[in-house]
Amino acid sequence: MAAAAYKVILLRHGESEWNAKNLFTGWVDVNLNDKGEKEAVRGGELLKDAGLLPDVVHTSVLKRAIRTSQLALEAADRHWIPVRRSWRLNERHYGALQGKDKAQTLAEFGEEQFMLWRRSYDVPPPVLADGAEFSQSDDPRYGSIPPELLPRTECLKDVVERMLPYWYDAIVPDLTAGRTVLIAAHGNSLRALVKHLDGISDTDIAALNIPTGIPLAYDLDASFRPLTPGGTYLDPEAAAASIEAVKNQGKK
Amino acid sequence: MAAAAYKVILLRHGESEWNAKNLFTGWVDVNLNDKGEKEAVRGGELLKDAGLLPDVVHTSVLKRAIRTSQLALEAADRHWIPVRRSWRLNERHYGALQGKDKAQTLAEFGEEQFMLWRRSYDVPPPVLADGAEFSQSDDPRYGSIPPELLPRTECLKDVVERMLPYWYDAIVPDLTAGRTVLIAAHGNSLRALVKHLDGISDTDIAALNIPTGIPLAYDLDASFRPLTPGGTYLDPEAAAASIEAVKNQGKK
Repeated sequence: MAAAAYKVILLRHGESEWNAKNLFTGWVDVNLNDKGEKEAVRGGELLKDAGLLPDVVHTSVLKRAIRTSQLALEAADRHWIPVRRSWRLNERHYGALQGKDKAQTLAEFGEEQFMLWRRSYDVPPPVLADGAEFSQSDDPRYGSIPPELLPRTECLKDVVERMLPYWYDAIVPDLTAGRTVLIAAHGNSLRALVKHLDGISDTDIAALNIPTGIPLAYDLDASFRPLTPGGTYLDPEAAAASIEAVKNQGKK
Repeated sequence: MAAAAYKVILLRHGESEWNAKNLFTGWVDVNLNDKGEKEAVRGGELLKDAGLLPDVVHTSVLKRAIRTSQLALEAADRHWIPVRRSWRLNERHYGALQGKDKAQTLAEFGEEQFMLWRRSYDVPPPVLADGAEFSQSDDPRYGSIPPELLPRTECLKDVVERMLPYWYDAIVPDLTAGRTVLIAAHGNSLRALVKHLDGISDTDIAALNIPTGIPLAYDLDASFRPLTPGGTYLDPEAAAASIEAVKNQGKK
């Protein structure tokens, strides 16, 4: 096996106040709940136990990923490392579904449409109008994004397209500088990155789920491709159990 | 009065686990206690109420300042802004006094020597040997600092000298880019900065104390000098009471 040139660790935030309420969240800036905070601390302990210590952290601009990074880094005694943030690591923008109850949405639109919005690669939910409840069009944190760039809804394909420039322009330079990089982000922005790293097809990505709170470490070769496809979860048993649970949810 | 060209806000961290135990802390990386966490949240609420919203935060690499910045920014709904850190914003290195009980040290060395170490401008405590308990010589966060630069003890003059390059090279460029800057740091690194900004003499700086947890806002002119000498505390009454309490402590 070739020697690892670069190390990147992906960490999906844990349960938030709205996960527990079964609402579509997207870009709405809700915080972690107690369970989510514990998941973040556990993620940091896994990093520390593995001796996999980040030199720099990249987060989205959403509180649940920021807080996850802070709790995990404090648990790993790496709270002092440089921090970078970008909206390009944000969760998928869920459009007009943001703030809606998932069960109600399923009942209203039927399972086929519901699953298309949740899992298709290129079908976004309806646009969320600027100024509507749960819109971020007036949020100062996005004030430097020109209106044509600011998402009003996104499918996973859109997430891949807006995330990749950040991977190439901000994260890869940290890797080439010899830094171990932690990315604290979201289910869909991390799926987008894994799709890119592992070269997963537009079809197969639908079945991929990333467990919350368990660091996923990739050793990359000189071309920034994984030495081990799919990377390595720092707690493989917990990761497998979590992935299995999500699969069974879908079968109900 | 001239128009303000730049805005910078200083925030001293609140009570830490060792403040409450009356130990010299310096570069030892202790956390905030509950009171310190509350002070930080209150500091953020003061920023929010004043509409004085930072665009970027600079912190030391010590947990008590980092945590203060995180709690304050979350309270002000600015958790998403860019973060920069530097050891140059650290508390004064207290040399061989780090980890020692303040009352015991006073009893052992007498009041004259004790006050010289605490308040003189240019008399540092004895050097803390590399590898000694409470030394940071092997701490990975200082691994990129050449040995001749890494402090082993400091007087306030030393703090001014190692802090100023960061002011000029990292903070001033953020100001000239039009950003409102928050600096979350420590009693002595902030005294060093205030000494510079307000042009306080080596003698007069001894009497200056900065209250914990109360944002101190400076409007600066085009030469990066205060429009109002001493700046403006966002809660002036609490700041005055805190400064008075410290004065009276000295009179006991």
